[in-house]
Amino acid sequence: MNTGELVELGQQLRVDSIRAAAAAGSGHPTSSMSAADLMAVLFARHFRYDFERPDHPGNDRFVLSKGHASPLMYATYKATGAIDDEELLTFRKSGSRLEGHPTPRQLPWVETATGSLGQGLPVGVGIALAGKRLDHADYRVWVLCGDSELAEGSVWEAAEHAAYEHLDNLTLIVDVNRLGQRGPTRHGHDLDAYARRFQAFGWHTVEVDGHDVDAVDRAYGEADSTKGQPTAILARTLKGKGVEAVQDREGLHGKPLPEAEEAIEELGGPRDLRIPVRQPSPAPAPPAGHTGHLDLPRWDKGEEVATRNAFGEALTALGTARGDIVALDGEVGDSTRAEFFAKEHPERYIECYIAEQQMVAAAVGVAARGRTPYASTFAAFLTRAHDFIRMASVSGSGINLVGSHAGVAIGQDGPSQMGLEDLAMMRAVHGSTVLYPCDANQTARLVAAMADLDGIRYLRTSRGESPVVYGPDEEFPVGGSKVLRSSDRDRLTLVAAGVTVPEALAAADALEGEGIAVRVIDLYSVKPVDRETLRTAAEETGCLVTVEDHHPEGGLGDAVLDAFADGRPVPRLVRLAVRNMPGSASPDEQLHAAGIDAESIAAAGRLLVGEAIVA
Amino acid sequence: MNTGELVELGQQLRVDSIRAAAAAGSGHPTSSMSAADLMAVLFARHFRYDFERPDHPGNDRFVLSKGHASPLMYATYKATGAIDDEELLTFRKSGSRLEGHPTPRQLPWVETATGSLGQGLPVGVGIALAGKRLDHADYRVWVLCGDSELAEGSVWEAAEHAAYEHLDNLTLIVDVNRLGQRGPTRHGHDLDAYARRFQAFGWHTVEVDGHDVDAVDRAYGEADSTKGQPTAILARTLKGKGVEAVQDREGLHGKPLPEAEEAIEELGGPRDLRIPVRQPSPAPAPPAGHTGHLDLPRWDKGEEVATRNAFGEALTALGTARGDIVALDGEVGDSTRAEFFAKEHPERYIECYIAEQQMVAAAVGVAARGRTPYASTFAAFLTRAHDFIRMASVSGSGINLVGSHAGVAIGQDGPSQMGLEDLAMMRAVHGSTVLYPCDANQTARLVAAMADLDGIRYLRTSRGESPVVYGPDEEFPVGGSKVLRSSDRDRLTLVAAGVTVPEALAAADALEGEGIAVRVIDLYSVKPVDRETLRTAAEETGCLVTVEDHHPEGGLGDAVLDAFADGRPVPRLVRLAVRNMPGSASPDEQLHAAGIDAESIAAAGRLLVGEAIVA
Repeated sequence: MNTGELVELGQQLRVDSIRAAAAAGSGHPTSSMSAADLMAVLFARHFRYDFERPDHPGNDRFVLSKGHASPLMYATYKATGAIDDEELLTFRKSGSRLEGHPTPRQLPWVETATGSLGQGLPVGVGIALAGKRLDHADYRVWVLCGDSELAEGSVWEAAEHAAYEHLDNLTLIVDVNRLGQRGPTRHGHDLDAYARRFQAFGWHTVEVDGHDVDAVDRAYGEADSTKGQPTAILARTLKGKGVEAVQDREGLHGKPLPEAEEAIEELGGPRDLRIPVRQPSPAPAPPAGHTGHLDLPRWDKGEEVATRNAFGEALTALGTARGDIVALDGEVGDSTRAEFFAKEHPERYIECYIAEQQMVAAAVGVAARGRTPYASTFAAFLTRAHDFIRMASVSGSGINLVGSHAGVAIGQDGPSQMGLEDLAMMRAVHGSTVLYPCDANQTARLVAAMADLDGIRYLRTSRGESPVVYGPDEEFPVGGSKVLRSSDRDRLTLVAAGVTVPEALAAADALEGEGIAVRVIDLYSVKPVDRETLRTAAEETGCLVTVEDHHPEGGLGDAVLDAFADGRPVPRLVRLAVRNMPGSASPDEQLHAAGIDAESIAAAGRLLVGEAIVA
Repeated sequence: MNTGELVELGQQLRVDSIRAAAAAGSGHPTSSMSAADLMAVLFARHFRYDFERPDHPGNDRFVLSKGHASPLMYATYKATGAIDDEELLTFRKSGSRLEGHPTPRQLPWVETATGSLGQGLPVGVGIALAGKRLDHADYRVWVLCGDSELAEGSVWEAAEHAAYEHLDNLTLIVDVNRLGQRGPTRHGHDLDAYARRFQAFGWHTVEVDGHDVDAVDRAYGEADSTKGQPTAILARTLKGKGVEAVQDREGLHGKPLPEAEEAIEELGGPRDLRIPVRQPSPAPAPPAGHTGHLDLPRWDKGEEVATRNAFGEALTALGTARGDIVALDGEVGDSTRAEFFAKEHPERYIECYIAEQQMVAAAVGVAARGRTPYASTFAAFLTRAHDFIRMASVSGSGINLVGSHAGVAIGQDGPSQMGLEDLAMMRAVHGSTVLYPCDANQTARLVAAMADLDGIRYLRTSRGESPVVYGPDEEFPVGGSKVLRSSDRDRLTLVAAGVTVPEALAAADALEGEGIAVRVIDLYSVKPVDRETLRTAAEETGCLVTVEDHHPEGGLGDAVLDAFADGRPVPRLVRLAVRNMPGSASPDEQLHAAGIDAESIAAAGRLLVGEAIVA
């Protein structure tokens, strides 16, 4: 396409953005119009992509970080022929693939869901890392973001990571239209302000008039030929460009154009230009899941092993068996034990330093390139990436997250380091799996099993050593549980997981000595939960005590209750959890202070069996 | 103190850090030793503080962002006379005020809990904002952070905010000891790399040898005299400085020194220097809570009003009545309606742009200065600040958070914009209050009530209009609920909140028409929950249906179950919640697709009353 055609294409994308939003009665046409020329030049002259084969390993990758500009994305798809005009006008309607903000769940050309700002670049960095370090392919990653979202710290985590890894296959296009949702941005049209920041972080920068298609074309060419560092193109644009009534005006964010027909006329009316998208180069396919024999570590019953260690060893073994396994960590690999993997498979270990948002985003990025990532840090610090985990779920991304140092059992370090909200956070993620092993063999099996699940999978590990309860050949299906003690005389069921399993067993011993037979269930699969075993235990023993090293809300206790919310009779129950704000103390002191040690469990059991009221 | 004394003081702080960690058997002495000279000079020559009056309004404020260097903090307290040597050696022991990471819960000189890295500067920015914009006092804010934590994006959100607001009362001291937990940082001792970044963000920078006390003294002086911008002091230091066996060596993070006695001897043995801390200047006290008559907005029953609008109006009225009210928003004030407050009280409105971590941190900062902050954004985007909310709770900070655009009821914008995990996140925060009003008058009352609560308080608002159910004089105690329909024939109780209240009422109408009398409870206080009313309803009607615009985990349904986890009999129940991943659709279509509209509620009610099994 020549200059004149590119200009026309930009106008077409504007017109179609306006038409889509008008048909929907909502959406963000003005945010689309500012970036229309940037998209026109990118897709017509630089982007290499086979729309028939979105899984082509040589495809360039495009991420629309400013996801609210979805009309522009869909108008571009129409111009490539990927969708037709009829579908374009289904925008935002029930059942349409063209959602308010793009997601890959139904659109194979979308790499990651966006709409929470400041996430496109971090995920783009993950894809670019995959291209450079894992795929060794020459595809490029293009991210289009807004200027407002540069206020998000996650953008600077990504900027830092990209420059450090010399990701010259990554280009960030910033649509500097100077207007946020509520009003002007901090820096308006001061492109230099943004350029200084990116340069300081080690990026190459280009400043350009975002409505001058030839200048934009040259900027993309400069990005393409820049070696050793990523490029940020800072494009001066006008929100609502091309329609006098809305151009560069405040108060029009996220609204269809008031006079759509006149606006379309002002832009020269509808067009039907077709973009001849460049084809990708051949590239090798990503590695298959199973490439070798899985030789998981094994421990003997009675050994004392921390589950975090078992995680590290199992992940290392899994990495040996499968070329698709990638590990990421937030500069605490010596604590999480991801370091074991790093030593054995350095080429598939991504050190994310202390930047948990970028770590999860990088996991989403490498998952988009066919890998199976395991991202680990302290359970407490995964809360830093909550919004990224939420959005990964919207994407339907398949990632494994591992949180170590769970609960008060870590001891002296105190509450800032204790994961006490992680089960609540991870359970509430749509379609998630939440696993919490109590011993080394169980951990190893679950680490291997989670690799093949869908969606967001979470494994919670513990800092301290704990006794090996299970033999190395025991199986632990996801959604299952283990009945560790059982008799037909049981008057009570204790439900525990992780560090509370040994406590529950000790409590059961104590109660047994007093003539109270007790069932003990190891609920290692917190979500999905083993409803059948819980229901049976409730029916046979009449009452339950749940015990967890977590705040009382959203964790194991709530997971157990989930088994009984089906309208059938519910057992009497008591939930033991961490209701205090811990300070520093030894692990045993902490468990006791929180009321989740063997002594506290036994006391609750006695009360419940005596039919006393506990609360 | 002269140069020689400052050098000696630095050595004393090292020795006492080693002694504290040795007594505890854990802790981070090497991270303390690198910053000992920086602390010695700060407290002996620049910091103005009355240790007898930590609430003195003219006090400078110090934040130890690298909270793991707590031994250094406590050694400094000892040198000021605030604690004695005996207490120093209680470090990390059960019951001690000297926790593994500092918190203000027991130590009045600590401004905010730290230990999750990258949070000290953001909170420091909040305190400095209070000093400049609210207190109009000349106290200074000093933040000491590590180099590793500069990888956290939250640091750059803070850097951006501080420079934009010209916070020349803020000094960041970076202890560049080049070693993180696991190994070297990305930039090692390259001070220029950090200086470039801060300069690009608009900061003044000073590079200094962090062990040259005179140079450090001059750097602090330069920070003090720099006008119009904040200063970052980049100090080259050595981890474990002064003890050959550990100095500048890897693999020694977070461990007591192996040979403490020898190390103390190498440092010249214990000393007992006392720091003559400079006294603060007089300053006005922050405003009291109640400074005028509260004239809340009022609506008539039957009006259609969005609860987000009621929030905006009520907050504005509250701000008129109380000078301590401060509003913060993440550049969506036109959507959350915080903008109403901004127009009326611009001097107490802090625009945080799209930086939710910084927004919550700034709220914590102004709360530390005696204000009552309300920080608002979309409920979904509060997940971005989860770790900050968690740490605010560890601090015991009193802040109000308001999340708008809750649930699938927002309609077309799709899942990226829908708060569907916020109740789970906020309920799991220790000591939190979670409120979810269904109408405008209820919202206004709760906005006013939450101002006087302790801890983290959360209000969930809705995007769309809904009918006013309650009169303007109705009262809504926190921890209460409202029984909206009741008879002695009730065979079922529907428990709803927010947008599901009108749906539940419509379902009750439908069931009543079929001869099934139904009780309806508006559970506006999700935490604490009204156990008594729920228990009574359960006993009288036999079964419950909960219905919420939230994922099934951790929200309203779990809150209701909490009322029955006391060992007494539990009612049969069914929980309706958002179990699908929504796409784009109208609000009504969304509620129906999620199975939480009146029709779905009535269907569940019929099944439950018929004693059928639902799940």
